[in-house]
Amino acid sequence: MNHLIDITDFSVEELKDLLDSALDIIKNPEKYQEKCKHKKLATLFFEPSTRTRLSFEAAMYELGGNVIGFSDGASSSATKGESIADTAKIVSNYADIIAMRSPKEGAALVASLNSSIPVINAGDGGHCHPTQTLADLLTIYREKGTFDNLTVGLCGDLKYGRTVHSLIAALSRYKGIKLVLISPKELRIPANVLEDIIIPNKMEYIEVENLEENISNLDVLYMTRIQRERFTDMNEYERLKNSYVLDVNKMNKAPSKMIVLHPLPRVNEISVKVDSDPRALYFKQALNGKYIRMALILKLLSEKDKVTKFSFENNKLLYNKYKCNNPKCICQTEQELEQISKIVDEKNNVVRCIYCEQRTN
Amino acid sequence: MNHLIDITDFSVEELKDLLDSALDIIKNPEKYQEKCKHKKLATLFFEPSTRTRLSFEAAMYELGGNVIGFSDGASSSATKGESIADTAKIVSNYADIIAMRSPKEGAALVASLNSSIPVINAGDGGHCHPTQTLADLLTIYREKGTFDNLTVGLCGDLKYGRTVHSLIAALSRYKGIKLVLISPKELRIPANVLEDIIIPNKMEYIEVENLEENISNLDVLYMTRIQRERFTDMNEYERLKNSYVLDVNKMNKAPSKMIVLHPLPRVNEISVKVDSDPRALYFKQALNGKYIRMALILKLLSEKDKVTKFSFENNKLLYNKYKCNNPKCICQTEQELEQISKIVDEKNNVVRCIYCEQRTN
Amino acid sequence: MNHLIDITDFSVEELKDLLDSALDIIKNPEKYQEKCKHKKLATLFFEPSTRTRLSFEAAMYELGGNVIGFSDGASSSATKGESIADTAKIVSNYADIIAMRSPKEGAALVASLNSSIPVINAGDGGHCHPTQTLADLLTIYREKGTFDNLTVGLCGDLKYGRTVHSLIAALSRYKGIKLVLISPKELRIPANVLEDIIIPNKMEYIEVENLEENISNLDVLYMTRIQRERFTDMNEYERLKNSYVLDVNKMNKAPSKMIVLHPLPRVNEISVKVDSDPRALYFKQALNGKYIRMALILKLLSEKDKVTKFSFENNKLLYNKYKCNNPKCICQTEQELEQISKIVDEKNNVVRCIYCEQRTN
Repeated sequence: MNHLIDITDFSVEELKDLLDSALDIIKNPEKYQEKCKHKKLATLFFEPSTRTRLSFEAAMYELGGNVIGFSDGASSSATKGESIADTAKIVSNYADIIAMRSPKEGAALVASLNSSIPVINAGDGGHCHPTQTLADLLTIYREKGTFDNLTVGLCGDLKYGRTVHSLIAALSRYKGIKLVLISPKELRIPANVLEDIIIPNKMEYIEVENLEENISNLDVLYMTRIQRERFTDMNEYERLKNSYVLDVNKMNKAPSKMIVLHPLPRVNEISVKVDSDPRALYFKQALNGKYIRMALILKLLSEKDKVTKFSFENNKLLYNKYKCNNPKCICQTEQELEQISKIVDEKNNVVRCIYCEQRTN
Repeated sequence: MNHLIDITDFSVEELKDLLDSALDIIKNPEKYQEKCKHKKLATLFFEPSTRTRLSFEAAMYELGGNVIGFSDGASSSATKGESIADTAKIVSNYADIIAMRSPKEGAALVASLNSSIPVINAGDGGHCHPTQTLADLLTIYREKGTFDNLTVGLCGDLKYGRTVHSLIAALSRYKGIKLVLISPKELRIPANVLEDIIIPNKMEYIEVENLEENISNLDVLYMTRIQRERFTDMNEYERLKNSYVLDVNKMNKAPSKMIVLHPLPRVNEISVKVDSDPRALYFKQALNGKYIRMALILKLLSEKDKVTKFSFENNKLLYNKYKCNNPKCICQTEQELEQISKIVDEKNNVVRCIYCEQRTN
Repeated sequence: MNHLIDITDFSVEELKDLLDSALDIIKNPEKYQEKCKHKKLATLFFEPSTRTRLSFEAAMYELGGNVIGFSDGASSSATKGESIADTAKIVSNYADIIAMRSPKEGAALVASLNSSIPVINAGDGGHCHPTQTLADLLTIYREKGTFDNLTVGLCGDLKYGRTVHSLIAALSRYKGIKLVLISPKELRIPANVLEDIIIPNKMEYIEVENLEENISNLDVLYMTRIQRERFTDMNEYERLKNSYVLDVNKMNKAPSKMIVLHPLPRVNEISVKVDSDPRALYFKQALNGKYIRMALILKLLSEKDKVTKFSFENNKLLYNKYKCNNPKCICQTEQELEQISKIVDEKNNVVRCIYCEQRTN
């Protein structure tokens, strides 16, 4: 049985098959209308997320299945203190596949370790949100036909934006990718993304501050929101904020084949007037999110009886040696959960919590 | 493509077809069991409303379709500040038809202007709630066979009750209607309903204060609730409140063929003891609400590819000339929404916001 | 038409048929996949309960039906003050069967008295939760093949645990049952359970304080949680708490065929390390909960047109003679609800509210 916790759980080949499966669904939706008849998806959303949840539910219904679940923690037994492990064990009795959203980092991994049905991570705090990245990838793949040799601009809050980090990790496995990292100084890409992903994979990259000056070189522009509260210097915020708003003016300087993505919801970082530009693909990206989730549900259900290797190799694990200090980590609240770390870089002595992947040493 | 935002969006002929379609569904429910197979209704309820939501969901399931959605704003991305326009665009990717409930007046109209699937207004603040009026109309039509020449008593809070205003607007298009407007002085029908609907349509009407004295003349009695907090003079409230409670005594003075309607929920304005009276049709009215919603969903889905005229004519619109001051209007919060007004009465210089229909001049 | 409000609403014969029906569903699930096609279950949950709700919903979907409803009171019209009776009347128009959860004791009974479709009590405050007991019974029946001559240990909070009281009531109708009541003094089984159920039915029982010393004699161990807040003496709590935690050590002293049940959610009263013990059946019990609910839905729907005797006989009822003082009773808030008491023991003059079954005299 396979789960999807992190986007890199899938190999490049598996990912290609998944994207091609989504393309076939787009082409022949009626072929898939009954594929999940008598199957149930459990959407376990411990925090609200309309788009993601509705996208999963639409996906399951378009496959002929049904949906059970909850849409925020308050309607669940979590308020009675039930552990994620127990929830996963119980829901394994009621459904065929789980999509879990939680504010706790590592929650989906803990669920997958206790579930007898496939678990999809639908977002675990600031850690991962792999189906968003799948939607991003399908959108690029549909429009560009390839990931190789693309120049991808990532704009906005590159420090805290997990969708940005995840997309970079996914793209790191293709060749000839150029990253244009566009952000204010205070919100630059974190050192660990550079050191763990961009540099070891020899990705070409530049860090710049100005969107307008760099937009003309891009094949893909991935927008994210800059939140006022991220700034310590309000003058700096006021000086910069408009330069990160994508408007008709800036679009006029962009290549005719550039595509604009955004994970949504957008607040005001893309002007509504850009929506009618054929290069604005963020709503189509949401539609692609439905199709890739259909492909994902089919893939995981078809592999249910397959014996699969665990995602971290045992010889690199350290049991109860380090204590994770991330206050958002699932290990802070889950009862009787063993503190396990993994050595991710022996040379530089980098050890991380297996759940939230924060450093524990 | 058509939407239903306001009850008068449908012509008298369209309304008759819709009512007849509901009657056929009531007669032959099994004929309709698979009509919406593989279709999805999105119930986007930004504020809770059990009856309305369950009625829509039951309607869709009885047509063989499925339902996605949310039942209060807290479980939706609205908490992240997403606009109604963006929600409508995204949900257009996930569903085939939308039923939207919002506390913001004009929300459903904004959704319909941005949606690529039909939108049904399931209540937008104090503005409109057309499917309630459809349930009212179907109940009268099933029992009386016609709307012509009926004497309709409207009792209770005629000032703030949007269902009352909407029913009057709907009835204004039939002939020989007599309105008996029964309310305390403080809660009389507002001047604009008189001036915009009742008088121009030459509807016969009387305004009275006493239910018991007038009940013997009615074909239809439409009850609504009088809320204590509407009164400025508590002595007046105490003096009056019982005279607006429908009880067995008052029912004894009513004609044997009079029917009692109520939009529900009722608190104590109709005694529970009246429920067993065969003239008490408010629970059957809720059942009719399901049937008329089935007919409505079928109608709007069948017209999806039809090109239809916009509901307000362009030549009467004023762009950015007036600013709407209604604090509940969607235009107060929706990003980059143009301030558009419509001239509804050129002679008397009446200009209204197109979203909430409050006067802007 | 039948409802399930209290576990003893079913005779021993009916219960056996229900359990056997569940066994057949377990054996031949595909036979039942379309049994409820075009039927709707309404899950009316005025307070959240994931396991119970998801179990009902999974049950209905595995029967080919659909589900409408709400998962907490805040999304329902209860916030507008609608009575349980009106909710039941309205939902009777939208669904084929109701599962109701409410914090108000007697709510499901009031619903059943006003509903035109079967009502299942999915928990009414501290009063009853009969489908939990059905899951308990099915688990014992599947493992032991009988209820006769079993030694059943009930451990933890026997004072407030409604599942314990309900299970004792259910078992009281079989022969040779021995109860081992394991609890701290402060949380012993209440006098009325002894006097009304255990003693009149001549059940063998012992009351003990120590789990470890008594575990070796048990066929069934039913664990419940001891809540810190139940204790008046914190020293007593600290002294006792670990002795009521089921861990691997204690399991080593238990018979090899003893089974462990728990209504879940568990917090820490059973160590996670016990989960892998084949005698730990609490997750399978949750699965059985789904199967028995499938059998229950089928049973009640099949009896919809059957005329059935009321569950309390009229000649023992007292109208408006006593007033119920239980603050959690539905009679405190439901409008125009008659105060009805039943004489349950004429000799000892025991009179109880028909809704919450607390004494009214």
